[in-house]
Amino acid sequence: MAKKQKLKIIPLGGLNEIGKNMTVFEYGDDILLVDCGMAFPEDEMLGIDIVIPDITYLQKNADKLRAIVLTHAHEDHIGSLPYVLRELHVPVYGTRLALGIVANRLKEHGIAGDLRNVNAGQTIKVGAFSVEFIHSNHSIPDATALAIHTPVGIVVHTGDFKIDCTPIDGDMIDLGRLAQLGKKGVLALLSDSTNAERSGYSMSESTVGKSFEEFFRTAGDRRIIVATFASNIHRIQQIFDAAVRYDRKVAISGRSMENIVNVAMELEYIHVPDGVLIGIDQIRRYPDNKIVIITTGSQGETMSALYRMAFSEHRKVEIGPSDLIVISASPIPGNEKLVSRVINELLKKGAQVVYESLADVHVSGHASQEELKLMISLVKPKYFIPVHGEQRHLLQHAELAKMLGWDSSHIFIMDIGKVLELDRRSAKLNGTVPSGRILVDGLGVGDVGNIVLRDRKHLSEDGLIVLAMGLSGEERELVSGPEIVSRGFVYVRESENLMDDIRAVVLHSLADAQRRGLTDYNGIKNLVRGDLADYLYQKTKRKPMILPVIMEV
Amino acid sequence: MAKKQKLKIIPLGGLNEIGKNMTVFEYGDDILLVDCGMAFPEDEMLGIDIVIPDITYLQKNADKLRAIVLTHAHEDHIGSLPYVLRELHVPVYGTRLALGIVANRLKEHGIAGDLRNVNAGQTIKVGAFSVEFIHSNHSIPDATALAIHTPVGIVVHTGDFKIDCTPIDGDMIDLGRLAQLGKKGVLALLSDSTNAERSGYSMSESTVGKSFEEFFRTAGDRRIIVATFASNIHRIQQIFDAAVRYDRKVAISGRSMENIVNVAMELEYIHVPDGVLIGIDQIRRYPDNKIVIITTGSQGETMSALYRMAFSEHRKVEIGPSDLIVISASPIPGNEKLVSRVINELLKKGAQVVYESLADVHVSGHASQEELKLMISLVKPKYFIPVHGEQRHLLQHAELAKMLGWDSSHIFIMDIGKVLELDRRSAKLNGTVPSGRILVDGLGVGDVGNIVLRDRKHLSEDGLIVLAMGLSGEERELVSGPEIVSRGFVYVRESENLMDDIRAVVLHSLADAQRRGLTDYNGIKNLVRGDLADYLYQKTKRKPMILPVIMEV
Repeated sequence: MAKKQKLKIIPLGGLNEIGKNMTVFEYGDDILLVDCGMAFPEDEMLGIDIVIPDITYLQKNADKLRAIVLTHAHEDHIGSLPYVLRELHVPVYGTRLALGIVANRLKEHGIAGDLRNVNAGQTIKVGAFSVEFIHSNHSIPDATALAIHTPVGIVVHTGDFKIDCTPIDGDMIDLGRLAQLGKKGVLALLSDSTNAERSGYSMSESTVGKSFEEFFRTAGDRRIIVATFASNIHRIQQIFDAAVRYDRKVAISGRSMENIVNVAMELEYIHVPDGVLIGIDQIRRYPDNKIVIITTGSQGETMSALYRMAFSEHRKVEIGPSDLIVISASPIPGNEKLVSRVINELLKKGAQVVYESLADVHVSGHASQEELKLMISLVKPKYFIPVHGEQRHLLQHAELAKMLGWDSSHIFIMDIGKVLELDRRSAKLNGTVPSGRILVDGLGVGDVGNIVLRDRKHLSEDGLIVLAMGLSGEERELVSGPEIVSRGFVYVRESENLMDDIRAVVLHSLADAQRRGLTDYNGIKNLVRGDLADYLYQKTKRKPMILPVIMEV
Repeated sequence: MAKKQKLKIIPLGGLNEIGKNMTVFEYGDDILLVDCGMAFPEDEMLGIDIVIPDITYLQKNADKLRAIVLTHAHEDHIGSLPYVLRELHVPVYGTRLALGIVANRLKEHGIAGDLRNVNAGQTIKVGAFSVEFIHSNHSIPDATALAIHTPVGIVVHTGDFKIDCTPIDGDMIDLGRLAQLGKKGVLALLSDSTNAERSGYSMSESTVGKSFEEFFRTAGDRRIIVATFASNIHRIQQIFDAAVRYDRKVAISGRSMENIVNVAMELEYIHVPDGVLIGIDQIRRYPDNKIVIITTGSQGETMSALYRMAFSEHRKVEIGPSDLIVISASPIPGNEKLVSRVINELLKKGAQVVYESLADVHVSGHASQEELKLMISLVKPKYFIPVHGEQRHLLQHAELAKMLGWDSSHIFIMDIGKVLELDRRSAKLNGTVPSGRILVDGLGVGDVGNIVLRDRKHLSEDGLIVLAMGLSGEERELVSGPEIVSRGFVYVRESENLMDDIRAVVLHSLADAQRRGLTDYNGIKNLVRGDLADYLYQKTKRKPMILPVIMEV
């Protein structure tokens, strides 16, 4: 090659959004992909199950893609793997727990993956890159940061992280190695911006254990139910620990919780003495004060176990005044009302409910400002790239770097699809690649677009009216119908007058069409639709979708 | 009357929900109604504009209803007046600002109201009741608490309140009078539970003024844009004050903001020196550093002025790097993501944006725990009834009363429709009256019920397929169609194969019906619908609404 190669860093997800984290590192003929996440749909994405990144760029460069490397096993870092691996056949590297969870997921999708286990501290060779896995702290065990050794310098990607001096598995994030890299010289740092607006220092996971201890100690005769994130295995370990100390059996409720606890116990990330874990069917055999139930539903999800308990739809667990329920989580933005609804229902059943605004029952897995500053200060990158966050978080994270003395010209606020080109001495944004959101709805990947969503929104607000008309001959004589079917507009049985009015309006429009000699079906449909829309808006101030259907008879 | 009368307190709204506050006080043949609020629709109430209380009980007892008394002019206390006054002709009492805002609203609805002005400190006679208006503090001026003097004792209703020692209009809530009533003996206290989970003491409104002062002082050459609640007139006054001190003109953007500022200036609740207020059209005539824009949109509402500015849809205001935008509000639960989206867009345009997590730009209008305790301790009611809140807030408020020594038997956690009967010595729940939510959609009041909402939800998630079939004769021979129309399901132009498959499935079902001798139209529809639903679910894992329409030809 005559021209010296540059390193390209291209985020395909995770910037200006929460979730679907995915970053391309490209040098010459080699592409390394870091993380492969999904996102939850926005409110306006009606009916959508999940959102995955647009991987057109990877598909076009499939021959260059050498490996996918996972920083940890959260959905927003692994959730699009089943979709990506269907298109791209490439080895996936990650720590033991991450691969355990991924293996389960791929099995559900009927996909075989080439999963390759790495331990923190190890380095793997991926084309032109050497990828070093560095032990980190997060709300799931076995999370790693990455030092990507490239021909133009070292790039550190923190993944999601916090600095926890008293983590549950005993190992603090490997700040020593990060500092060592910093001394050696780091070209660029990509760092987690999720909590860049939070001042101070995040609380240690072990503080939650202290709260649990207190609740278990004072629970008396009550049954204890704890709802938390299925993947928060350290949290779950702490619940087991408290249960053992206070001589309670533990049952699990909720499919995702059962799945992850099974994987985690198999892989020995959760340590439980024999006889402590019981089936949810067995809880009846024990008095309330010998039972703890760990459940899903900490976000108020309507299909979750806790939701079903709250609304008396759970087959095995009936909530009452002898229950102490701990919701060990914060509502994720957008879920506040769902969580509140569940809390209110549980309270109405007489249960005592402890949640975040009342006690220290949750800590974040993401670094606050002081930790973020520490990371930048230790790694001392030449260039700083805040990642994992909306614009507000990225900019706030950039402010922290500026406070530490970094110059604006060495900080890059990127966006998905943007290409940052680096060599040893310089970095600049240069061009874009395709990027965006692919919507998954049922088995359909990408087949629901803006037009379908716009229709769903319209239908959701004012419903619809179908007008089926049998027209005959050149004259377009109405010989059958109009049959009127309405859904989501008004309750038809109580609106007979309105239905009669609609019929009259349609007949009038059809007569009008005939009088005007309008024979084109689309013309007739537009006329009928327009007349009826005007009539209904004037009469009801609503705009149902109107679907005229013409049958040629 | 042989039997001694009891006082009935019946909440028709505002308990186990946020909003549509409305409480019945009934003694003998006299009913007094306190507040007449609306609520915003829950997420699952698709297409609904607002929610108002079920007033069946008032309609049945219309002859007893003597007056509506308003505590203040927020929507959740006055918003259903246009609907209630259409049904019930009754005088409405309130302070000057409340009636000013109500008058405007009634005019929009073309309703004449019998509005009667009262000042704080005054007492009015309403049937068996004497209603005393007590000056209070809240996030709107001229808010009042009520002492309702009844034949069985005094009932204090706080309305919404906080205790602000340095309010903008100079008058602290009249704790002296409340204490005096407490000494005299109060039968029952109904108190605002909104912030019962917040520890400590709410911050004074004047602290926000100090923040504004700082932003104005350091704004330099930038234009300042402040978004806040239209009804927060003290906040708006503070913005005007800062503008005057720093020699800036003020323009207003957003219809509700313009309306309320107009009313407030007319009624002299806002004091602005001549020449400070300019039209939004005039801002071009001044340099950025001479301009302040006060705008709606602090909740990220998609039709608001700030939203339009953020998304470049505002005709008069273009956002850029020389703007300093202050969002002087907290996101109401459920609005977090909307607000965040607006913040992100404004930031992307290069503006500096200040919001609650970064600076003291908002204070709540509701009492925190220490204020709530103070209220209970001063009023010393025999019976305590937490109101205005979800179950979690009511129970937490009850806990505060228990901490202060109130016995559980003297605390009533009520619900809408429940009847509390009181005499001088006792209180007990006795029966219920009709209550609930009436949904307003366009001009329709109450015509959208669960069936319509369920259909809207179904349509919003998977869209629909209309199958129009022209059948002829006893044989139900298909002579026209099937015409297939789909919306919100798949994008039809890209799904021709699927449409062909659907046609084949329908033809197969119709042939099946004929073979089986099925001639009943509903039977045929059910068969077609069921077969197609099965096929589509297996093929797409989606469940669109399927609407078969049969035309007899």
